[in-house]
Amino acid sequence: MAVQGSRLWQRIMRLAQIGAQESGGISRLSFTSEERKAKDLTAEYMKEAGLEVREDAAGNLIGRKEWNNSQLSPIVIGSHIDTVVQGGKFDGALGVLAGIEAVQSIVEQGLTLKHPVEVVAFTDEEGARFGFGMIGSRAMAGTLNEEDLSCRDSEGVSIREAMLAAGLEPALIAGAKAPGIHAYLELHIEQGQVLESASLPAGIVTGIAGPLWMKVKLKGQAGHAGAAPMRFRKDALAAAAAVIVRIEDIARSYPVAVATVGKLQLLPGGINIIPSDVEFSIDLRDIDANIRDEAEAKIRAAIAEICVPRGITWELEDFQRVPPVPCSKQVQSIVAKACVLAGIEPLYLPSGAGHDAMQFREVCPIGMIFVRSELGISHNPKEWSSF
Amino acid sequence: MAVQGSRLWQRIMRLAQIGAQESGGISRLSFTSEERKAKDLTAEYMKEAGLEVREDAAGNLIGRKEWNNSQLSPIVIGSHIDTVVQGGKFDGALGVLAGIEAVQSIVEQGLTLKHPVEVVAFTDEEGARFGFGMIGSRAMAGTLNEEDLSCRDSEGVSIREAMLAAGLEPALIAGAKAPGIHAYLELHIEQGQVLESASLPAGIVTGIAGPLWMKVKLKGQAGHAGAAPMRFRKDALAAAAAVIVRIEDIARSYPVAVATVGKLQLLPGGINIIPSDVEFSIDLRDIDANIRDEAEAKIRAAIAEICVPRGITWELEDFQRVPPVPCSKQVQSIVAKACVLAGIEPLYLPSGAGHDAMQFREVCPIGMIFVRSELGISHNPKEWSSF
Repeated sequence: MAVQGSRLWQRIMRLAQIGAQESGGISRLSFTSEERKAKDLTAEYMKEAGLEVREDAAGNLIGRKEWNNSQLSPIVIGSHIDTVVQGGKFDGALGVLAGIEAVQSIVEQGLTLKHPVEVVAFTDEEGARFGFGMIGSRAMAGTLNEEDLSCRDSEGVSIREAMLAAGLEPALIAGAKAPGIHAYLELHIEQGQVLESASLPAGIVTGIAGPLWMKVKLKGQAGHAGAAPMRFRKDALAAAAAVIVRIEDIARSYPVAVATVGKLQLLPGGINIIPSDVEFSIDLRDIDANIRDEAEAKIRAAIAEICVPRGITWELEDFQRVPPVPCSKQVQSIVAKACVLAGIEPLYLPSGAGHDAMQFREVCPIGMIFVRSELGISHNPKEWSSF
Repeated sequence: MAVQGSRLWQRIMRLAQIGAQESGGISRLSFTSEERKAKDLTAEYMKEAGLEVREDAAGNLIGRKEWNNSQLSPIVIGSHIDTVVQGGKFDGALGVLAGIEAVQSIVEQGLTLKHPVEVVAFTDEEGARFGFGMIGSRAMAGTLNEEDLSCRDSEGVSIREAMLAAGLEPALIAGAKAPGIHAYLELHIEQGQVLESASLPAGIVTGIAGPLWMKVKLKGQAGHAGAAPMRFRKDALAAAAAVIVRIEDIARSYPVAVATVGKLQLLPGGINIIPSDVEFSIDLRDIDANIRDEAEAKIRAAIAEICVPRGITWELEDFQRVPPVPCSKQVQSIVAKACVLAGIEPLYLPSGAGHDAMQFREVCPIGMIFVRSELGISHNPKEWSSF
């Protein structure tokens, strides 16, 4: 079955006009008029595709197509149409519009599926407004807590208040939980360079890495950069540097794991003063919880091994531990067959970033298709994907 | 010849009362009433020691003792009695008062020296007030420039204005240059832990390390901490960490060299964003200019070696390059003999910090004696030295 690439492309470009900024970026934060307009346009496309459109208590936009077995649980194809501030044209929107295009092509070609299909534009995946994302997919998966709605945006407006202002009833949010989902599929831009470097337009996602976020504090001893011989030093930055080198080595020793030190601060911070205190973050991910645990243990051991002989003391705090979500082998296999049919060599790759799909880990089998990103750039006006 | 340790100790403790703060620290900034009082008390001690006291155009307090050959150029024993804000009792003051005690003991024991001796309390060694130190010793060595007097303190007062307010004539500063000095000797606290760890009260300084200050900027590429596989990254912090590890290794490979990365900043600084930009400082010192040059070359090579394969670009700027000053072998040998006579095993060690002695590098042979510092602490109320 072929889809109409040009129709999909035109819809992507037209949706990209909603929230477009002079800079070339797109800003569509949740529960704003831009997001409303984007949902309205998406609903039109759903109707054009022959889908029956509704919105649930979380504001998720759902287009449903049934064939002969309307009582079966649906296959859900989802992604989001909200963006970060100054985001791009593809992150999220591509997955929703591709889902609509797929169903529309099925309908137009007179094909039928056993299970109903629901194409969903989830509310607020990015978390750009309230610092708390995947609101819609959490609600549909039944994992959204009432207290999560208390998160506030930079102007002090809570999710609850924003929902009310958008005509939604927060008290009914539990009703957004889907009674049953047969399988969940999401197409998304890769936001990395694996497909591009392999010259492939798409690939099969093996799992979604869950981030483990840690904070490390090292304490040494300040001293005069001239008067303290190297052998007497307790240089917290020199220790931190050795740890960062080891963190990189540990991540590199696994095929999928990634580790990043993105924040680092030191004291006292004088050019001629040995640093006494360094604090840095670690973001460690893998799609396999066991591997992430093993890498974490190696990092903890490396910190001890480096700090003890240097007389450096340390504290390590883990403050976010999102479980990795493996993709269903069955869904992967189906996507791989589709790749072969489309003449695309099947390439399996992990998702390092989080996606709405994660929320369905305990609901149903999940799968994801990645589409090539130019230079891996996303969350940026320069974001680009093409076949 | 023995000195009277108890008299010296009492003078140290009495001088420490001038500028004493409630915190236990001492603040005697240059050209303030506290510094004036400290000079007046020091002048009293000089007179008690049989020295003829004068002040030069830079405000240096000079006590002179002549014996039979008054026309010979003097041996100068100097240090300073200004302090940093919240400084200690020994940094500077010990050297001046020890010089007075030495001459007083010579006089009291009826001994004579061939060369006249001048004990000097130099004006503003620390640079704590104007960010420009060693004013008095530069003036005596003839290396102070008229324009240096334009440096201003935090309240906008220039050195020139402060001198005028203190009754000094900036226009006459060139007159502070000594016509000739036979040799220069300075006793100072070590500000490190070499003597303490060797259980020795004093040691012989081999040279004064000159700091080379560099600024390194690394530029990589920001990216998503989840979506960018390790092999595609251009992580500026991972590169910086590898460089910092190498800098430490290079310094450790020499007996005396020290290298410190005391400042480090990175961008963008998000926990889940690969750092694109890192800027850090390097403070590199040795008492031998050739070794410092060699270490610098190794550091530059290490930066290139680490950054090139990572796709990281860099800029390296050196913005201060103070020449190291070796101590005279002859003076070292004389001090070593004095150590043996005093029952102290001669221990040779470098000075990582700068001292007034540096200013006389092109004037005469210089030498320094270091006195043990408890825990190496200085520029701090906890600074402590004892025999």
